[in-house]
Amino acid sequence: MVAEKMYELGTKKSTIRTIFEFGRKRAAEVGEENIFDFSLGNPNVPTPEFVKQAVVDILSEMEPSAIHGYTIAPGNPEVREILAKSINERFGTQFSGKNLFLTAGAAAAITISFKALCEAGDEFIAFAPFFPEYRCFVESVGGKLVVVPPQPKDFQIDFGAFGKCVTPHTKAVIVNSPNNPSGAVYSEETIRELASVLQAKEKEYGHPIFIISDEPYREIAFEGYTVPYVTKYYANTLVCYSYSKSFSLPGERIGYIVVPDEIADFGRVYGAIAGAARVLTHVNAPSLWQLVIARCAGRPSDIRTYVKNGRLLYQGLIDAGFECVKPQGAFYLFPKALEPDDYAFCERAKKYDLLLVPGTDFGCPGYFRVAYCIKTETIERSLPLFKKLAAEYR
Amino acid sequence: MVAEKMYELGTKKSTIRTIFEFGRKRAAEVGEENIFDFSLGNPNVPTPEFVKQAVVDILSEMEPSAIHGYTIAPGNPEVREILAKSINERFGTQFSGKNLFLTAGAAAAITISFKALCEAGDEFIAFAPFFPEYRCFVESVGGKLVVVPPQPKDFQIDFGAFGKCVTPHTKAVIVNSPNNPSGAVYSEETIRELASVLQAKEKEYGHPIFIISDEPYREIAFEGYTVPYVTKYYANTLVCYSYSKSFSLPGERIGYIVVPDEIADFGRVYGAIAGAARVLTHVNAPSLWQLVIARCAGRPSDIRTYVKNGRLLYQGLIDAGFECVKPQGAFYLFPKALEPDDYAFCERAKKYDLLLVPGTDFGCPGYFRVAYCIKTETIERSLPLFKKLAAEYR
Repeated sequence: MVAEKMYELGTKKSTIRTIFEFGRKRAAEVGEENIFDFSLGNPNVPTPEFVKQAVVDILSEMEPSAIHGYTIAPGNPEVREILAKSINERFGTQFSGKNLFLTAGAAAAITISFKALCEAGDEFIAFAPFFPEYRCFVESVGGKLVVVPPQPKDFQIDFGAFGKCVTPHTKAVIVNSPNNPSGAVYSEETIRELASVLQAKEKEYGHPIFIISDEPYREIAFEGYTVPYVTKYYANTLVCYSYSKSFSLPGERIGYIVVPDEIADFGRVYGAIAGAARVLTHVNAPSLWQLVIARCAGRPSDIRTYVKNGRLLYQGLIDAGFECVKPQGAFYLFPKALEPDDYAFCERAKKYDLLLVPGTDFGCPGYFRVAYCIKTETIERSLPLFKKLAAEYR
Repeated sequence: MVAEKMYELGTKKSTIRTIFEFGRKRAAEVGEENIFDFSLGNPNVPTPEFVKQAVVDILSEMEPSAIHGYTIAPGNPEVREILAKSINERFGTQFSGKNLFLTAGAAAAITISFKALCEAGDEFIAFAPFFPEYRCFVESVGGKLVVVPPQPKDFQIDFGAFGKCVTPHTKAVIVNSPNNPSGAVYSEETIRELASVLQAKEKEYGHPIFIISDEPYREIAFEGYTVPYVTKYYANTLVCYSYSKSFSLPGERIGYIVVPDEIADFGRVYGAIAGAARVLTHVNAPSLWQLVIARCAGRPSDIRTYVKNGRLLYQGLIDAGFECVKPQGAFYLFPKALEPDDYAFCERAKKYDLLLVPGTDFGCPGYFRVAYCIKTETIERSLPLFKKLAAEYR
């Protein structure tokens, strides 16, 4: 009577959702302040004042129909010119408005890209640990997700393992740096090597292999870490960007896809993106927010809270005896669980009302994700509990 | 290298788009004021002041994270309660928040509904004339669009023709009243008969047949015409609503689906809708706009301009010798072309810089659409040109 697959996708609770709901229940029992919910990747830095000001200014300065009317499907041409210029100033690229396609956030941007590119039999490669929705999105457009095993020492790419995953069926490779859930930032060396491997494979197979660079966390990179702009290293790259994290606007659904001139057959790729956006019924990215991001182009993200929280939590976990890669970006740590079964470990952590997400959900068993986009004070109070939890394993 | 179908869908220009672009070119040559562009369904009534005020109030009263944060996928629960209450007050229904699923406008609402319901071999019925994107959306979820021939005397339903189109494969019937492009409003009698035919067919086939009521023009119904609330006549109805036309917010992408308790297996339908929204990557309807529509719930649409324009244009066309159903709602007239080939007719109209859309594009050859959501003064100045055009055919 309904599409069975849609029913499953709409009703099967994710682990994160289940943990979050457990937390809400516990909070009602023992009080909000006694729950240490590290499960959700919701930015906790307030939306910058300049964003609010931009909304107010636009509403007072512009005609309603110019603010709220349909835009053409790729987005307001002036907005796209401004954003392209801003990207060029920051990264030394040479884009113009025609290289951008505005979208309802990064989820739409990556799925539109998958749908635009996917032909029968195509494979899309993700590096573990990875954002679990990749599987759902890739499979929903008829593709197959191929997962490269993790390299836990630093969560860069295990190129030996990667080489075995690339086949003549590989349509694209998903890069997500700064990474959810590992918090790692891919080094320039990693991107260079990735580009070099793919260029060789393109030559070998005689067709393009794309990089889809999923960059919602681009602005959240800590001191000493820079996030290479992938199009400068590899021509066949689509950049998928979102303002969800950089300006704390996750509910507003605004972002874009960059399609470089240098991509194999720009016209066909851009055209297919327009078609994919159409059938996914993203008529246009929300029009007011198009104007807002143009006015705020180039304004910095306030990442101080994430820097402070990341340091504090990392040090606390190390002191408690956990193994963990240093925080480099995003707002996640991905430590090794203290027993091989990460589900059992996260279950045990619940005793202390520490709500953690098992690494298995990200394709990386034996680890767990800690989202530190929460109050610093909550993290401070959680540290003795992590110590108690670790003590159980001695 | 790309999905061929997506490339086609993204690059093949619609007739409306081609006409619009022709108009832009002509406007550059002969001046904006000499072009009579009746091609686009873009609301020209300004967004109400109370909508702007609601945005300003929300920004000043609420915490940014409460405004711009993710909402749950079906939308903010309080917002849904308020909207349900408002629908109940207006239409005597008994919905609560759990019956609503907020979406990025009506295009998303109908496509999510198609995708939620569509199983292999399913057919979806539309009544000609119909919104051309129905075909694209239905086919994109794997369904087959079956078109019922028009009943041009009043553009109600030709039930004889309809009866022949319903088969055991019929999953749903799309109702769009007030109608784009005919401007007709389905009478209570039409809805009653439709419900009665479908109830009999449901019994005969032993499975539900849904009505998907696409209602972006619900508020634009003229004096003497009321738009029946379809759930009151037929249980297996999904209502797809949008604020694009009622509050002139087409670019902001905000609307909802109503799923009545009485629908065959509420849990499965609502669950499948959630799954469809997920894979179409409508993470949540834009969060600020969720709050805005809650504050503006029940506020009236200003349809005075459309009433005035509709009357003026109708009388002008009748005086010029056209055959046309009286304007009842939306902001379209759908007169009979003065020669059987509506493309040739619209081409000839271009001589007078009258930009009209051939009925063939809406599944109804021999007619043409006139969108009158434009300046009244432009309509006034167009009337002598329609007379000249008609004179050519005498």
